[in-house]
Amino acid sequence: MNTILPTSEVAESLTLELRRGSLVLAVLAALQQEHYGYTLRKALAERGLEMEESTLYPLLRRLETQGLLTSEWREEDKRRKRFYRLSATGVTVFEKLLAEYAGLTSALERILNSSARILASSAVVTKE
Amino acid sequence: MNTILPTSEVAESLTLELRRGSLVLAVLAALQQEHYGYTLRKALAERGLEMEESTLYPLLRRLETQGLLTSEWREEDKRRKRFYRLSATGVTVFEKLLAEYAGLTSALERILNSSARILASSAVVTKE
Repeated sequence: MNTILPTSEVAESLTLELRRGSLVLAVLAALQQEHYGYTLRKALAERGLEMEESTLYPLLRRLETQGLLTSEWREEDKRRKRFYRLSATGVTVFEKLLAEYAGLTSALERILNSSARILASSAVVTKE
Repeated sequence: MNTILPTSEVAESLTLELRRGSLVLAVLAALQQEHYGYTLRKALAERGLEMEESTLYPLLRRLETQGLLTSEWREEDKRRKRFYRLSATGVTVFEKLLAEYAGLTSALERILNSSARILASSAVVTKE
């Protein structure tokens, strides 16, 4: 972790870190309703969250293994599809994460606003 | 990763995952101004983001190793303190992360709102 990387790789690894937690929350939120992989990915993308299949499918399997999702194979339009939705445990965990997320975003908003305000006022001082 | 854990541990590990990316963004935002560890931690806590020293200090060292922060030891109030602030690279990476964060939060807001709306309408259907 402590090796020196090019800036673009550092930016990319921090971006992934930032996305990772949000993806879980988004998937859990969407799976309050039943979805199979394709419609889930489409629902997220339509709301501005693009996820590669190679990210989404392993995440679904991981969340199921962790007991947060249940899945069921069913035939629809003559094709067998695996439908996912939140389990009872998933609902509990989702609500905890949602509370944490609300706290984090309001703290971040305050931090971002106050640093923007300080920078704006120091820019004014510099100008004078 | 795929071992079955108690619900509380799953919730905790997902919470940590959700926090991790936000903490980096918060620290970078705050370090647009110079701070040493104590005042940084206080500034974040006052805005609602509590971080253990055991989380903050290794994160500062990691961000410095990644080239995003510069630090300088100086004496203040008769004590030597290590002051941190964003490097030029740090400013670039912070701006990228901020854009990513803005995109993520608006997507998440749309996802959370639409799932809340669907659940509310299905609750109405159930009542009828």
